[in-house]
Order: sequence, then C-alpha cells, then structure tokens
Amino acid sequence: MSTRNSLFRKAANAAATSHDEHANPDLAATNNTPIEQTRWNGWGNININKKVSPHGAKLIKSHIGKSTKLPSVSLKDVLKTVPKSRLPAAITDLDIVSTDREVRLRHARGQSFPDWIAMHSGDFETFPDGVAHPQSTADVEQLLKLAREHDLIVIPFGGGTSVVGHINPQKGARPVLTVAMSKMDRLIDLDFDSQIATFGAGTQGPAVEAQLGEHGYRLGHYPQSWELSTLGGWIAARSSGQQSLGYGRIEQMFAGGTLVTPQGVLEIADIPASSAGPDLREMMMGTEGRVGIFTEVKMRVQPQPEQEVFKVAFLPNWAAGKAVLKQAVQSNIRLSMLRLSNAVETDAHLHLGTSPSQFLAISTYLKARGLNSDKVMLTYGVSGDKAQNKLALMQFNKLLKQHGSVTGKITNIMGSVWAHGRFKFPYLRGTLWERGIMVDTFETATNWGRIDEQMAQMQEAVRTALASEGEEVMAFTHISHVYKQGASLYTTYFFRAAKDHAATLKRWQKIKHAASMSLAHGKATISHQHGVGRDHAPYLAAEKGELGLQVTHDILKSLDPEQRMNPGVLLED
Amino acid sequence: MSTRNSLFRKAANAAATSHDEHANPDLAATNNTPIEQTRWNGWGNININKKVSPHGAKLIKSHIGKSTKLPSVSLKDVLKTVPKSRLPAAITDLDIVSTDREVRLRHARGQSFPDWIAMHSGDFETFPDGVAHPQSTADVEQLLKLAREHDLIVIPFGGGTSVVGHINPQKGARPVLTVAMSKMDRLIDLDFDSQIATFGAGTQGPAVEAQLGEHGYRLGHYPQSWELSTLGGWIAARSSGQQSLGYGRIEQMFAGGTLVTPQGVLEIADIPASSAGPDLREMMMGTEGRVGIFTEVKMRVQPQPEQEVFKVAFLPNWAAGKAVLKQAVQSNIRLSMLRLSNAVETDAHLHLGTSPSQFLAISTYLKARGLNSDKVMLTYGVSGDKAQNKLALMQFNKLLKQHGSVTGKITNIMGSVWAHGRFKFPYLRGTLWERGIMVDTFETATNWGRIDEQMAQMQEAVRTALASEGEEVMAFTHISHVYKQGASLYTTYFFRAAKDHAATLKRWQKIKHAASMSLAHGKATISHQHGVGRDHAPYLAAEKGELGLQVTHDILKSLDPEQRMNPGVLLED
Repeated sequence: MSTRNSLFRKAANAAATSHDEHANPDLAATNNTPIEQTRWNGWGNININKKVSPHGAKLIKSHIGKSTKLPSVSLKDVLKTVPKSRLPAAITDLDIVSTDREVRLRHARGQSFPDWIAMHSGDFETFPDGVAHPQSTADVEQLLKLAREHDLIVIPFGGGTSVVGHINPQKGARPVLTVAMSKMDRLIDLDFDSQIATFGAGTQGPAVEAQLGEHGYRLGHYPQSWELSTLGGWIAARSSGQQSLGYGRIEQMFAGGTLVTPQGVLEIADIPASSAGPDLREMMMGTEGRVGIFTEVKMRVQPQPEQEVFKVAFLPNWAAGKAVLKQAVQSNIRLSMLRLSNAVETDAHLHLGTSPSQFLAISTYLKARGLNSDKVMLTYGVSGDKAQNKLALMQFNKLLKQHGSVTGKITNIMGSVWAHGRFKFPYLRGTLWERGIMVDTFETATNWGRIDEQMAQMQEAVRTALASEGEEVMAFTHISHVYKQGASLYTTYFFRAAKDHAATLKRWQKIKHAASMSLAHGKATISHQHGVGRDHAPYLAAEKGELGLQVTHDILKSLDPEQRMNPGVLLED
Repeated sequence: MSTRNSLFRKAANAAATSHDEHANPDLAATNNTPIEQTRWNGWGNININKKVSPHGAKLIKSHIGKSTKLPSVSLKDVLKTVPKSRLPAAITDLDIVSTDREVRLRHARGQSFPDWIAMHSGDFETFPDGVAHPQSTADVEQLLKLAREHDLIVIPFGGGTSVVGHINPQKGARPVLTVAMSKMDRLIDLDFDSQIATFGAGTQGPAVEAQLGEHGYRLGHYPQSWELSTLGGWIAARSSGQQSLGYGRIEQMFAGGTLVTPQGVLEIADIPASSAGPDLREMMMGTEGRVGIFTEVKMRVQPQPEQEVFKVAFLPNWAAGKAVLKQAVQSNIRLSMLRLSNAVETDAHLHLGTSPSQFLAISTYLKARGLNSDKVMLTYGVSGDKAQNKLALMQFNKLLKQHGSVTGKITNIMGSVWAHGRFKFPYLRGTLWERGIMVDTFETATNWGRIDEQMAQMQEAVRTALASEGEEVMAFTHISHVYKQGASLYTTYFFRAAKDHAATLKRWQKIKHAASMSLAHGKATISHQHGVGRDHAPYLAAEKGELGLQVTHDILKSLDPEQRMNPGVLLED
C-alpha cells in the first residue's frame, strides 16, 4: 500500500506543478483580474488551461460516441459585427463610459451554453451600446439619472460569469448601457468588533480574500466561479459557495449595504437580526439587477481559520454516502463542506481528474479494498478551531466507518489535490469544446425525502432528451450543499456537437427543457445557486406560484416602474 | 460553602414546589390552553401567580418611590360596553362565528401597556364585531371570500400575546371580524427523513412541543410568551426564542406553508435553499397579518437533545460579561443560549427572583468571592449531543475564567432554577400592577461595536423620560440573543402609576417615545423580537428608509389591495 501511496503522491505533486495546471498568478492579488486577461469566448484567465486525460476522453466517448469540433469565429470577425452605439452624447461624453467595440463585445455575454454558442458562432444578436465603469456610488446614481433622462436600458455587470443569461442585452428600441462594477473593488472598511467588512460590490473573489487576508480575516465564499465573480453578483443572484456548510450561503454573509435604484438610493441597514417587518435584505437578494445596482456591501467576515483540512472517502454505494451526509448534518457535526458524487460522477471524476499514473494507483487501491462500480466519492472538510475540528472529524469518521467507508493516506491526498485544483474544473469546458464535446450543468435542491427520486428523474430526463435524434447524453450528479432539511443536486452532462452551431443549440434546448421540467413541480427549486436569469425564468411559476410571482413582480415595479433595469431577467415580463 | 449551597438548594426546592409557583398543569398538554383558562385582563393562565418578594418590592420602591394601585373595572361592567355586532347574517349564521360579548372582549386586546390600561380602565375603544374559529384552510378561504363580499376588516388572532398592538381593531365604518386560529392546533404530518413537521398555525408553544415530543422531536422555539403564543403568530411577527443561539430564530425554522390572502392562496414551497429570486418566506414573515392568514405551516424540527443544561456564572462587570458573549459567539462555541444581565438587572433579578433565604445565600456567596455592585449575571446553556456539549462547556469555561468568572454549585443550581421558572416572569407584571408598579419592556439589536453606547442611550432616555413630572423610572437591560455581528438588548422598566388610568398611559407614552427615539437612527432595530404592530409603526422609517417602506407597502398592496387585513399594523397607512 505504501508503494501505491507514494506512486500517487508523486503523481499528485507532478500534476500540481505541471504546465497543464498553472497556479493562477492572480489568486493572491488584491486587484480584480483585468477583463483583457480573460478569454473573450470562453472561461477564465487566458494563462490557465486544463488538459483532458486520454482515459477521461475515452470514457466520455464510450458514453456519447465520437465527436467533431465546431468551428470558432475569430475575435476580429466578430468585432466587425458590433454596430454603432446608439447612446446619446450626454452619456458617451462621460469619462467613465466606453463605446469601444471590443469593450462592448466583452460585456455582451456570460457563460451560459447559449452564450458559448454565440461566442463561437459569432452570432451575438445584441451588444450593449456602451459600457460604464463607475468608481463610486455617486457615479452610479448619476448613470441611473441619465438613463432615466435618455430612456436607456441598464444592465449591471459583475464578473460576467452568469451561466443562465443574467447580463445579455435584449433586442429593443431603447439603447443599452451596461454598468461594469470592476473599478469598485476595494475593501472600504473593516469593523473588527462587529466583524463587518464593507467592500465595493465589484470586488472579485480572490481580491476579496486577499484584501481581508492582509488583516487576518476571511469571507469564506467560494463558488465555482470564484476567480472572476463578484460580491454584487453573488448577492444579486443568491450564490452559494463550496463551504456553505461551515460559512453559510451569501444570504448569511450579506449584512446590508447600498443599492442604487431608479427610484433613489436604498440603504439596507446592517442590523444583526430584526423582527421589524419583512426582511429588506432578503427582498433585494435575488433581484438579479432588476431593481438596481449594489455599490457598497457590508459582509459578515471572520478571522482566518486556525486549521483547514479537506479529505476524501469512498463509500460502497449512493445509499451509504447519502446516509452519511444526512446524519452528519442532522446531528450537527461541525464540518465546513460535504460533497458526494454519485457512482457515474465518481467514475468520471477518477478519469477526468487524474493523470494516467494517479488513475492506476487509485483504481488499484479501491478495488483492493473491495469497492466496485457502485462506489461513491465523498469529499469533506473542516475549517476553524482545532479542538472543534478534531471533535468533528472524530464524529464524522465514526459515521463513515458505520457505513463502510474506505479511507487512507491516498484518499487524504486526494482531498488536498481537490482543494488545490478546485477552481480549475471550469477550464475543462473549453478543452472538451475543442473536441466537439459539449458540457453543461444544472442544479437544484430538495428535501432529503425526495433526493433519490429527484436525482433519478433529472438524470433520466437529460439522458433521454436527445433520444429522437439517436444521441446519448452522459449525465452524472453530486450533492454539494447539505441542510438538515435536504440537499442540493448538481448534474453535469456531456453531449456531442451537432453539424453546426444552430443544431447544437437546439440539442441543448431540448436537454435544458427536459431538465427544467423535471424540477418544475414545486418540490425542487429551479436553481439552488445559479439564479434564474433568462434561461430559468419560464419555469419559475411552478416554484413560486402565481401569487408568488405577482408579489415578486410588484417588488420590481416598486423600485423600477419603467422596467429600465435588466428587463427579461428573473421574470419574463 | 457547602452550608450555603445546601441552604440555597433547600430554598430552591421549596420555591419550586410552593403555592407561589404552581407548575402550569397544561405545559405537557397536547392541546391549546382554552382562552377561558386565561386572564381576561392580564397575563396567562388563571391558575398561575407569581408573588413579589418583600426585598424585591423594597428595591423597586427605593428607585421609584411609594406607589398606589390603580382601580380595576370588573368583567361584568366591561361586558355592558360591548356594542351590538355589525356583522351581516351571512357571517353570523356560520357555525364557526361567534358574536358573544365575552368572546369578542377576550379577542379585543393583547398584552401591550395600552392594552393593560384598556383592560383595567374598561375603556376598550373598540371590539371586534365577531370572532371566527376556523378549523381548516378551506374555512379561512371562505371567511376571506365573505369578508370581501361584505367589505369586512379581518384581524388574524394567534395567542393574543402581542405586546405592541398587533390585534386591536381600529375604529372605522367597516365591521371587524377577528379570525382566531386556536382550533387549528394539530400536528398534521411529521417527515422524519427531512425533519419537517406540518402544524396547524394556531398551535401554541406547549402543544407544539408536546405533540412533537410524542415522536421524540422538538422545535426548540421558546419566546417568553411561549405558554400562549402560536406558530402563526411567531412567523407573522418574526419571533425569537430563548435558545435562538442553538435552535435559530423563527426565520430558520419556518420552511414554508399555506398563507390565505384576499387574492387567493399562496403556497410557499418548503425547499431547503434556493437562488430563484427573492425569498418568499422572508417576504411573508413579518407581515403581521396584513397580507393574509397562515393556516398550515411546515417547521424544521429535530430530535430531542441528548442532554440539555442551563448554568449561571457571575462576572465582575459588564465589560467582562460582554467580552465573554462576543468571544463565545465569534469563536463558534456551540452553546444553545447566552444571556447577560447588566449590573442593575443582576441586582433586580437577585431581589425579585429569590426567596429571602435564597437571596441571603447568594448575596453572601458572591460577596465572599469578591464581587461588588458592578457584578453581572450570565446565564448560558447547551442543548444537544453530549460530546459537542462537553467541548462547548470546556471552551466556554476557559473563556469565563479568563474574564474572572465566579461559578460553583450554587450558580449551577441557579441555572436549573432559571430553567424551571423561566416562563413565570411575565406573571410578575400582574402582581406588581396590583401594587401600582407599572412594568413594560422594549428591545432592539445592534452591532457589537454599538452595544454599550446603545444600552447607555436607551436606559438614559427611559430613566429621564418623566423628569418633568419629577418621577424616577427604574430601568435595566440584558443581552439575550447573540450573533457574530452583534446582539439584542432588552430593557425592562418600572414606573409609578399616576393618579388615574389616562395619566398613567400618558406617562407610558412619554417613556415609549423616548425609548423608541433612542433606536430610530437606522443602526439599531425598532424591534428584535416583538415586531412592529401599532406601537412601533411610527418609528419604522428610520430603519427601513423611505424606499424600504415603499417596497414593504407595495408587497402588502399586492396581496391585499383593499386594505382589508389588519390595517394600521406594521405600516401606518
């Protein structure tokens, strides 16, 4: 066993320093990543790539068949399609507004599947007429005032990482001004007594943690988009991070702040708790840019943890893994994260997340310990006080053993490898795209009593969505956020590109509709962490009910009576 | 020391079984307390009284001077003032509607200070024209339909325990139907897998716990009004219980349910977490009966704790006690409750909560341990898993010692005595009333950085509010709910009755205004746990801002466009 372990460790170290996975040079920077440093037609920093392993590619092929790359348009060619700005001089004369074609192009699309099709086909449909980069709340107030005077549409833009169409301009007569918050990226105040940090809402994940880190503090919010997504975006779309079990969702972190609306400035008081009527924080979180723009936000932070550890365990099957998660959270074991891949995802992860030598080492190890193809991978972590972590790990290990877990040095190393590479997975999307393998994800949350049924239904819906074309879709699922009441389910799927961009988009639309319909029965949310955007808006009624939608609509109308802010997002009208 | 301890234990046991403090015979009953078993003009069960100790009465007198009892009107005399019902036959013909004068009188007022003045002077001003006792959601739907057809005002009524005027009918042309939820008091479903209990919203605290207790489960919500207040009331007014640190506020417990509104039935889905737009639960909690009536509610419950312990410690002064609370919550020590009385409250509690022999034993003990009049009393508890409790107590004891705590067998016994008698304190209000000593409370929450300043300001505002009359007001404060960001502050005050009811009410109005103004600066909430009602509505703008009030108003309007539901509560218009 020690041989296998050292083999794996060697392989792990090699992977961590290989050219395949540069450490992001800016992860410790206190500044945002300049948008020029990101891909104009894909995910992330231009200096980071993630290769697909040969055994990983082979696995996908065994599910969906041989695939062919779609053509990709050049930046130069798309720039030619950006039309003349329709903004009036009163706007374009402002120093903080740009009508540069590339700037507008880079703020036209997010990271949804339709966005990727647009960015690779060159068919963008619409572009903002200009992009503003305000540096203060006063700047944003001025922009909204001018937008009213000149009847503009305004789209707030954080990191541009939406996967459901939050930031795309609609076609229409009114000129579109996108307000990019990237210059408001500073820690403004840190109240050590109350543990409240005030930030510019445009601060990206790494810059949040780096600026807090200088004072020994941490926010602890790590969504998969963390490298580029922003505080304002997390709040506006109700984000949830990998360690939500320990640090809470964004709802628990957002204490209050400044929201500039077309009707004026709404200051949300940062009071610890209140019974004074409905909660304004909770009314404004999730409005997805439809009522205004968060400019300065007050976040609940805490000292950096004394100790943080991530580990991996394998369980014989899904039922055992699920039992461990449910019992851990319901018995208050103080972990900071729990993530359980189902058997297909476990298999995919072992193929896609390893070098050939790592794959061999882990597979041999798990087989020797009696696990078969039903095995599931469980990733867990503790973060905080050492004594509390020790008790948590002791109680959790007991639970793991009761359910037949396999753990050892090799799985502990896998935990560290996961922690090291956890923000690199989105880069795989581009690598697979180049091979004609289309990837997308969707996610939900439901009660424990419905988890198995829901997972089965959504996977089946996705797998069979292209049956009429004779296409197989590969789908797998994990739980990554657990609550006493239930858990999230996150499904990833692969399918082959069709003959062209339009036909490929149609395939995606079929899958997306099938997946969304499997959620639209009022028992599972249309989204646990991605938000509604345009892609989920048609399915929201099943969750909220007609009256629920009406109330939501009336909130938006109250602060934006002229439907100036990001229309079409969240609610279709 | 063992002598003092045994003296105290003997005294404690005597108190626990004395005629002074009957254990409430219904605390383990699965049924609600019938309203006929409660005082028509005061707090609680007619079989329970709480005497004031001679040294307690002397202490209050030393602060506010000699006081004289106000006269109290008889029930018979008030019944003569109840006017004829204005309800149409279509309503009064319903089996579930009563126009009986005593039933209407018993649903006309809550437990606010103006309510007590009304109930003792006999000047009720208004009464509901009838009281409905629906037995199902369908009954409530029918009532709201008839209310629309006959243009009635509708007031939802839970336990009648509001201390800020939630349930009082306003004068006006439209007849008033109060909808009392006491018949909807059953556990309807218990989902063990997802730990969700569905209850009739009219279930009172003891009946909630007794019905869950039959299955080994617990909700864990214990507000001071627990004996009579209901699930629906807790949700509608955003209640918080004594063990909120461990079990959460009502916001964390309420998973969803059925709200019948004038516009139709709003079903709030019980999904563990969601990013699908603003949170409907959080929009409906705190609406205080202005948008509809909760009929069935889904609550997050959990198994009864393996172990529950309450203890008391004394610290040398407020600064030391506050440091212990702040550090405990910010370092995630897993306690279920923390409560810190300031020095004046500590003194008052030692006088009012003890028999003469107990008082002597404790005072002698604390003096011998070097504490002076700056000393503060800290009550804390753990509830749950034994290993987690053990670690929490170990970590907390370390913190206590660092700040100079005094603990011992005698303080441990005090913890048990507190737990035993904790729902009896409200009964003291009636006892003191009989001596002409007026009692009221108010409460807030603010960030740790503002706690001391806020406490000083609010106590000073109250103490000096009657200075122009030459009257002293005795005021003291505790923290009873702690958050990483800040804490609640709860102030109790005593003042003398004036020459008559009207003049006494005027005194209260002066104090209430002074107290509320000390909160109305947007940094401290107008209420952390009592809600807004009528008494706090004028001060809400400072907390929510104009736009915040506008959005709140538009939510109410969306579901109740004809302002039929509980008008005047929460928002003044």
